[in-house]
Amino acid sequence: MNKILFWSAAVSLLLFPDCVPAAEVKVSDATQACIECHTVIHPGIIQDWQKSRHSQVTPREAMAVKGLGLKVSSTDVPEELQGFAVGCAECHTLRPKDHADTFEHNGYEIHIVVSPGDCRACHAQEAQQYTRNLMSHAYKNLAGNKVYQDLEQTILGGIQRRDGKVTIQPANAATKAEACYYCHGTRLKVTGTETRNTSLAGKLQFPKIDGWPNQGVGRVNLDGTLGSCAACHTRHRFSIEMARKPYTCKECHVGPDVPVNKVYEASKHGNIFSTHNTDWEFRTVPWTIGSDFTAPTCAACHVSLVVNTEGEVVARRSHQMNDRLPWRMFGLVYAHPHPIEPDITIIRNKNGQPLPTDLEGGFASKYLVGKAEMDKRRQTLQAVCLSCHGTAWVNGQWARFENTIRETNAKTLTATQIMTDIWAAGLALGPAQNASPFDEVVERRWADTWLIYANTIRFASAMGGGGDYGVFADGRYELNKAIMEMQDWLELRRQLLPAKKP
Amino acid sequence: MNKILFWSAAVSLLLFPDCVPAAEVKVSDATQACIECHTVIHPGIIQDWQKSRHSQVTPREAMAVKGLGLKVSSTDVPEELQGFAVGCAECHTLRPKDHADTFEHNGYEIHIVVSPGDCRACHAQEAQQYTRNLMSHAYKNLAGNKVYQDLEQTILGGIQRRDGKVTIQPANAATKAEACYYCHGTRLKVTGTETRNTSLAGKLQFPKIDGWPNQGVGRVNLDGTLGSCAACHTRHRFSIEMARKPYTCKECHVGPDVPVNKVYEASKHGNIFSTHNTDWEFRTVPWTIGSDFTAPTCAACHVSLVVNTEGEVVARRSHQMNDRLPWRMFGLVYAHPHPIEPDITIIRNKNGQPLPTDLEGGFASKYLVGKAEMDKRRQTLQAVCLSCHGTAWVNGQWARFENTIRETNAKTLTATQIMTDIWAAGLALGPAQNASPFDEVVERRWADTWLIYANTIRFASAMGGGGDYGVFADGRYELNKAIMEMQDWLELRRQLLPAKKP
Amino acid sequence: MNKILFWSAAVSLLLFPDCVPAAEVKVSDATQACIECHTVIHPGIIQDWQKSRHSQVTPREAMAVKGLGLKVSSTDVPEELQGFAVGCAECHTLRPKDHADTFEHNGYEIHIVVSPGDCRACHAQEAQQYTRNLMSHAYKNLAGNKVYQDLEQTILGGIQRRDGKVTIQPANAATKAEACYYCHGTRLKVTGTETRNTSLAGKLQFPKIDGWPNQGVGRVNLDGTLGSCAACHTRHRFSIEMARKPYTCKECHVGPDVPVNKVYEASKHGNIFSTHNTDWEFRTVPWTIGSDFTAPTCAACHVSLVVNTEGEVVARRSHQMNDRLPWRMFGLVYAHPHPIEPDITIIRNKNGQPLPTDLEGGFASKYLVGKAEMDKRRQTLQAVCLSCHGTAWVNGQWARFENTIRETNAKTLTATQIMTDIWAAGLALGPAQNASPFDEVVERRWADTWLIYANTIRFASAMGGGGDYGVFADGRYELNKAIMEMQDWLELRRQLLPAKKP
Repeated sequence: MNKILFWSAAVSLLLFPDCVPAAEVKVSDATQACIECHTVIHPGIIQDWQKSRHSQVTPREAMAVKGLGLKVSSTDVPEELQGFAVGCAECHTLRPKDHADTFEHNGYEIHIVVSPGDCRACHAQEAQQYTRNLMSHAYKNLAGNKVYQDLEQTILGGIQRRDGKVTIQPANAATKAEACYYCHGTRLKVTGTETRNTSLAGKLQFPKIDGWPNQGVGRVNLDGTLGSCAACHTRHRFSIEMARKPYTCKECHVGPDVPVNKVYEASKHGNIFSTHNTDWEFRTVPWTIGSDFTAPTCAACHVSLVVNTEGEVVARRSHQMNDRLPWRMFGLVYAHPHPIEPDITIIRNKNGQPLPTDLEGGFASKYLVGKAEMDKRRQTLQAVCLSCHGTAWVNGQWARFENTIRETNAKTLTATQIMTDIWAAGLALGPAQNASPFDEVVERRWADTWLIYANTIRFASAMGGGGDYGVFADGRYELNKAIMEMQDWLELRRQLLPAKKP
Repeated sequence: MNKILFWSAAVSLLLFPDCVPAAEVKVSDATQACIECHTVIHPGIIQDWQKSRHSQVTPREAMAVKGLGLKVSSTDVPEELQGFAVGCAECHTLRPKDHADTFEHNGYEIHIVVSPGDCRACHAQEAQQYTRNLMSHAYKNLAGNKVYQDLEQTILGGIQRRDGKVTIQPANAATKAEACYYCHGTRLKVTGTETRNTSLAGKLQFPKIDGWPNQGVGRVNLDGTLGSCAACHTRHRFSIEMARKPYTCKECHVGPDVPVNKVYEASKHGNIFSTHNTDWEFRTVPWTIGSDFTAPTCAACHVSLVVNTEGEVVARRSHQMNDRLPWRMFGLVYAHPHPIEPDITIIRNKNGQPLPTDLEGGFASKYLVGKAEMDKRRQTLQAVCLSCHGTAWVNGQWARFENTIRETNAKTLTATQIMTDIWAAGLALGPAQNASPFDEVVERRWADTWLIYANTIRFASAMGGGGDYGVFADGRYELNKAIMEMQDWLELRRQLLPAKKP
Repeated sequence: MNKILFWSAAVSLLLFPDCVPAAEVKVSDATQACIECHTVIHPGIIQDWQKSRHSQVTPREAMAVKGLGLKVSSTDVPEELQGFAVGCAECHTLRPKDHADTFEHNGYEIHIVVSPGDCRACHAQEAQQYTRNLMSHAYKNLAGNKVYQDLEQTILGGIQRRDGKVTIQPANAATKAEACYYCHGTRLKVTGTETRNTSLAGKLQFPKIDGWPNQGVGRVNLDGTLGSCAACHTRHRFSIEMARKPYTCKECHVGPDVPVNKVYEASKHGNIFSTHNTDWEFRTVPWTIGSDFTAPTCAACHVSLVVNTEGEVVARRSHQMNDRLPWRMFGLVYAHPHPIEPDITIIRNKNGQPLPTDLEGGFASKYLVGKAEMDKRRQTLQAVCLSCHGTAWVNGQWARFENTIRETNAKTLTATQIMTDIWAAGLALGPAQNASPFDEVVERRWADTWLIYANTIRFASAMGGGGDYGVFADGRYELNKAIMEMQDWLELRRQLLPAKKP
């Protein structure tokens, strides 16, 4: 009987872990004031927060945790924050002078956009690691690179017809904000204030913010910090469970340029996750391989603090992420070792272009991690693999993966050679003519080879060990076909050349 | 200890809400007769129904519910139905004279196809609302529009070779029924009777029904009513949980012409749903934002009766659905304000075509809702958004969405201008030559621009706020590429024109 | 109160079915020795196994089960295995002389690759059935067919540029292993031994195995047997729950050549599964329609032993699978009746090619099942359908499906006629020129028609009854467009022919 009661309690805790009565956790007066109005007008936000750990534990209690279970990495949490639940006011009134969107709101100095600069009050180590993450620079790395800007414009830009020709115009800010910068993050800017009639407090003034709303990983915030923790730790529950499940990564990594989630879902790991995840434990810190989960999610390999059943660390928590990644699979235009610095606008290839590789596939090695660092990163990553797989298995998988990097880079070179021939023959206008290499259809098929197909094949190799995404689903079947099509396009135009230029 | 027991009971009810012993709910004699045979030959149906609310509550009990929890909206439920569970006979013997498929079956007058005309016995308001829903007219709106019929034939039709040319023939009924009309609904027709040998009762006669099986949203039923409630409220459990989860809408809205589900799954809302939905409550009426669920599914925004945690109505239940939708995003060929009437075969654009826009993008405004109605519908929809988002967030999102409608309509115009040039140059046969505008490959690439890509971009904007489906995944990357390809196609043929017509 | 406790216990068992204390199940000394080291270095494997039925039941107990619940079909399980849990050593030391990878490891003779030859010690009937399954021959059926090898090479092969032309080279073994043979299975081969430094036991020797890792369905094992049970019954939990959920089949059947999972997920059956599966029972044997589950997964129709609520067999367990399948929908190049033998390299069409159909669509009937067998297989399959659907429903669906086979085969014929014209005109090099029919872009568009689009349409018909995958999503919309494109390609080149060959 006791056993039944024990299980019942366990079940209850398992199903309602966030419903532990929070009555004993004091809420600050300021937060209480927020809740009083917003519980009616924003029930979704308030209820979400009430299910969060932030509403149920004070920083002081969290800081008292010993060992690997410690979640608050800051040792200097302001004394005045330590005794209360982490509520509305704790975040939205922090560092008011630092935020350009701070405004007076019913007696409080509120800012709308909470930033990593705020989160670091309690989570300093994670915030610091994240500044080394490529993603934190995702805005500038795209907006500050003239080659990528050219590609961006040919994708997003308005396309109009004049004199029987098509011309491409720059996209407007609204289009950009919901396209590339939805994931990369927008640059926020306060442009003034506006008065709105509110249901509970009559006329109130609010700041107007360009680029809002946005939760992109490289958002340029109103306090100058970079990124949005809520990209993965969705407000206002900030649940580690969500960050650990693959759906979060899917928001930006669904493809077809980065089809990580598709590959994962069709992989053996994804199958195990889909079948058994409702029995897993996603909230424990550290996260124990085997007892908490039996197949990795994105987070297990790339971010989380994971331990074995003896409690020994298998991989340390990393919000830099690429300290577990030797290769940057994303082709620009070739896959290459990871950049050393998160700000990749500093990179120059041998032709002076701001690209990590040159058009012939050579690496801009000065800016990329070297062999020793790549080996170290590989070993850090493989420690996770080796918790469920033998050495021969892991080595075999890795050898195939590196073969695939060589193979797809070689095919990208073939496609690029055809493209170069087309430019040389004057059949399309390219860099030599000071024209965009991305604004004609054959150039776009070339882009498909490295941006869609080669990437897909590499992701399928790395995260699935193979399967349809390496063959039919935007894989090798399509890659070879696209190269055949470029060749066919070239041959047909060549045949017509004399007629064209008599 | 009491607390543990309380939670245990709660857990039990949460996990087995449909297993409440139904012993006290009386089953009619007729239904009992059905069950006796069919429990052996159709265990799936019987078991499914036994898990349904229909088997566990009588109409009389359901009608006694006060307030927003009322699910039976009819006030004139026939007295003879009120005291029994809603079983097999209650639906399949209702209004026997109205159904062309009524037949004698072991002493009962049974009809096979249950229709909204039957469901309205208890759910009159929902049935009435649904008659105003575009979907209820989905059969006629496709089958009765000569432009759409032309497009349909070029998609479904047999394609044969004669004298080195391809010609397209009409598709047969079987192909149509499992293609367009699988979702739109078929027109059912009794064509005779057949005798079958049954395992339990020997030879029996059954009606033969053309167009069966089908559960399309605009099915033309054998009592003349339109639609199938089972399209979303899947028989024989008719579970509100299913209608509220996004998988139901996915059956028809998965794309790539209407990639709603793909967009949703990759959105922040979809991420929250996927991560947390096993903790949500999908069966309560009304549906409470924050406590029952913390991110919207399709139903929350478009159909359901949702309230805030104070029990105040945020949005009323709607089976019309477009009373919450100002814009019809689906391009035909441009996105446009929603039609006023659900029967859209009455629409004529300025050129007399049965289309809501003309080829230059002008709206057939006489048949479409005006600005005031659009504003009202937007506000009804946004009331749901505002339960979790601030005004600036919601306004910012909406401004981007309307920008995207303008942007994609402008690109559709560019594609259409190229297409028009191609027709004018005689490089393809179009409307001016009284030929189909859809049966040559360049015309099909034109169709891609508005039917696949522009739609995808708009859905990504509306339901995801952006992301990959607005860029790489059938988004702007593909839209601009398709326009480049049409231009390339035109230029190559132009170059050959003198040779062709010396 | 008692009721509450009863439900609590039920809940506990439901949530933790694998956590029943396994203390009473004896583990062999050999397995105990394995666990002692590997629990530290491979916690994922050990924990996974501890959650398995193999760790909790002895073969002797399993063999004692009477009736349909019997899972161990061998009657001659070796006496020495019967009394212990089925642990590491029971499988990895079985039949040491038969396995080429057997090696001495801390005093035990271990082999790395467990094969169906090992599993059959307890599961003889399933292993025997599987030898009749097409999948068990998936390696040879691809690697031993020269037409398929040609197609494989044009998909996977390196593609290089020489003198302005592209040429295709054979793919290397690593590429093959993670592409086609990831699913089909690799041919394993021991190539030597290697010494590795281990953390717990210092230097140890291990066999080196070509083609490892792999879990493909037709893997050629080191004991000569074919296949990998772990393809579906994922090691080391070997959970029937996983094999019954659709995610397992998705690993190889996600498309776009075999988009089974996509079709299923968007079908009514998939909707019911997605909505309700957390309430279903996936572990009972036999599997009861209605009470255990209310909509089929892949396994319910194609593999599992399913019964009605009276316990009567609706379909017997089948690891052959195609004894429930009359048609092989996969077009090579036309859909056709299932081959009689699982080794399909023996097939010759009327032109002597190793294909089940000829280029005009005729069947190589001598090698394919005949009408009587097809009828029998159809009835076996439809017995499952008829547990939830009336006869008229099932017959209507099937008539549409067979119509779709005819329709898509007819369209494949049209595409093939255009392709034949192109070859005849010398516009592409085909079989008559002793050239590959797959290595030019127009040939690849031809392949799209039967390999991608016709297959997709047939799967949508068979498993969804229709929907988007039959129309827009790689369906009829794309199939007719591809044929239009081939025609357009031909006409343009024809126009240029005189200029080409003056």
